[in-house]
Formats: sequence, structure tokens, C-alpha cells
Amino acid sequence: MRTQKKSTLPSREVRRYLEPGPIVLVSSHYGTKNNIMTLGWHTMLDFSPALVGLVISSANYSFELVRKSRECVINLPTTALTNQVVGIGNTSGAAIDKFAQFGLTAEKSAKVGAPRIRECHANFECRLHDDALVERYNFFIFEVVHAQVAASPRHPQTLHYTGNGIFMVAGKIISRRAMFRPDMLD
Amino acid sequence: MRTQKKSTLPSREVRRYLEPGPIVLVSSHYGTKNNIMTLGWHTMLDFSPALVGLVISSANYSFELVRKSRECVINLPTTALTNQVVGIGNTSGAAIDKFAQFGLTAEKSAKVGAPRIRECHANFECRLHDDALVERYNFFIFEVVHAQVAASPRHPQTLHYTGNGIFMVAGKIISRRAMFRPDMLD
Repeated sequence: MRTQKKSTLPSREVRRYLEPGPIVLVSSHYGTKNNIMTLGWHTMLDFSPALVGLVISSANYSFELVRKSRECVINLPTTALTNQVVGIGNTSGAAIDKFAQFGLTAEKSAKVGAPRIRECHANFECRLHDDALVERYNFFIFEVVHAQVAASPRHPQTLHYTGNGIFMVAGKIISRRAMFRPDMLD
Repeated sequence: MRTQKKSTLPSREVRRYLEPGPIVLVSSHYGTKNNIMTLGWHTMLDFSPALVGLVISSANYSFELVRKSRECVINLPTTALTNQVVGIGNTSGAAIDKFAQFGLTAEKSAKVGAPRIRECHANFECRLHDDALVERYNFFIFEVVHAQVAASPRHPQTLHYTGNGIFMVAGKIISRRAMFRPDMLD
């Protein structure tokens, strides 16, 4: 699979990739195990430092890896990885090595022990910031401590899950910049 | 503006509309005031009853209306309302009546005091479920107590915000149902 060199992304620009609501691949590491899960329940919580909330069900094998290591990487796949996204979401790391099974490369991260996925368009390395809602909702709040993104395309063909095996693919880009107050622009 | 009759939506199907990450319009009511805000930071937290987390900044006029009434409606706009979405996001309810200013209809909700927006594709009436993270992150957890949606189109042209005045519009729909484990389908 073709992969591109990536550049560091400032904290304030993380929202550009996550706020539109794409499916992401969350990679984790604890002890001798790496794992990947497919995740669609996330939200931005702050701009800078960028805080992101993720729902990682305790039924997922990744839950314990993330809870114990207090780290993960949020990786942004595009349609080039649609079948991997589905395969990863329909299997368990308790049974298989997902990097090997789905032909993805576990690359050393800059700031966390969890590996990033080389084939993804962007990688957001995260450290646990607040676990106050983990018990009640499996809701982890992470700080993005390092982010990198491929230079092109500027607007990647992300996948957006609607349930029931159906995805919406990112469509056309429209600007309404002229209608914004200057202080509302980045 | 043309509006369609809507049908009640079961709790478990709320995720179909919110998980893809669209911009939403949140309507609220307290005392004699109605308001609307544009919001892109939200996540599903549970299927049924459907729980949704919303970040409503304390800098927004809606914050106090929602905090005091403990209710809101999450309304789903499509590209037919792009200019209203931008206008609502760039003005304050402290200064104007947004329903009047943007030509939207405040319709009586089925289960909450906050009005729903007739011109939106779907309306999710919400009651506050948990305010544990409101002080720290402006993060409100709501239960959807009533949901309704227009019958068509089945996949609405939602708006997804990338910051800086630029939106991604929902694109093509692809199915990977055949690759899913039966228990992973709705």
C-alpha cells in the first residue's frame, strides 16, 4: 500500500479532521500486545491542547490495553482502507494480531508507547487526560500530544458510519468563509 | 420552505443520524426565551435509551438556557439550511431572536419544553441525564426522549464542519453489510 510522508500538525488543527465525525482506528499497546479497534463514537472537547473524548466499550479487547497503558493513537483511515476498517471492527484482538491480519504497519510513535498505523492519513498520539466517566460510560478523555498528517489530499475521503453495515463517504467541500465573523475563523 | 411530515424513530436508530458527525442545531427554551445554536462537538454514548454528549460552551447564550431548563432539542439540518447554520453560528441569542431572524419555525415538541425546528430533517428531543462534566468541559450528557425523522431522503445531505468556514457535505453511501458478523448489524 502506498504511504505518504506526513508533517506535524498543530494542536488547533486536530479538529479539522475529527470534528466532521469520521470513523477512526484506535491503536493501543500494553505489555507485549498491540491492538486496533474501529471507533465511531468520539467528540472534540477542546482546541489547544486538543482534547478528544472516545467511547471504548469495556466489551472491546482494547479497553484494558488503553486503561492500563493510559495511551492510544487515533488513526484516520480513508476509503483506501474500507475493508480493513470493517474487518477490524468485526474481529477481536483477543484472537488475532490485527496488524498482521489486515496488512497494516505498526510504526513507532513520537510520544507514546502505542504504535501508530502508517497506512492512515493522519495519526493523533494521545495520553489519557481524564477518566472520570470511564466507569459510567466507557468515556475516555485524551489529550493529543502529537499529531501528524499526510500533505494530500487536503480533504481526505473519510468514512462515516451510519450503523447496519452502511457508511457515508465524505463528499464535496463548500466554503462559507465570507459569511463568518473574523473571530470565528481559524 | 418545504417541510415534510415526520415519523417517530426508535431510540436505537438515533445513532444512524448522529454517529456520522453532522453539524446540528440545538434549540432551547427557558423562561420567555427560545434560542438556537450551531454545534459540531457531539458523540453518541449509548444506544437505548439513546444517550448523546454535547459540548455547549459557557460562552454561548444557549448554555444558561440549557443548564436551567435541563432540556434541549438536537435538530438535524441539511444543505437546504447551510446559510442558516452559518448565520446561527455567527450571531448570539442575547442580541436577536434566531427563529425570527433565520426564518425557522419553532414547533411544539412532544416531550420537552424546548421547541423543535420544523425545517430540519430530524429532531431529537432531549432531557439532561448527567451533568458531571459540565463544569470541567461544558459537556452535557442527554437522553433522547423522543425522536422523529422525515421519511426521505433516506440519507440526508448533512453538513460536517472542518473549521475555518469550510464544510464537508455528506457524499456517497456504500454498504459492507456482507462483511459484518450478524450480531454487529442493527
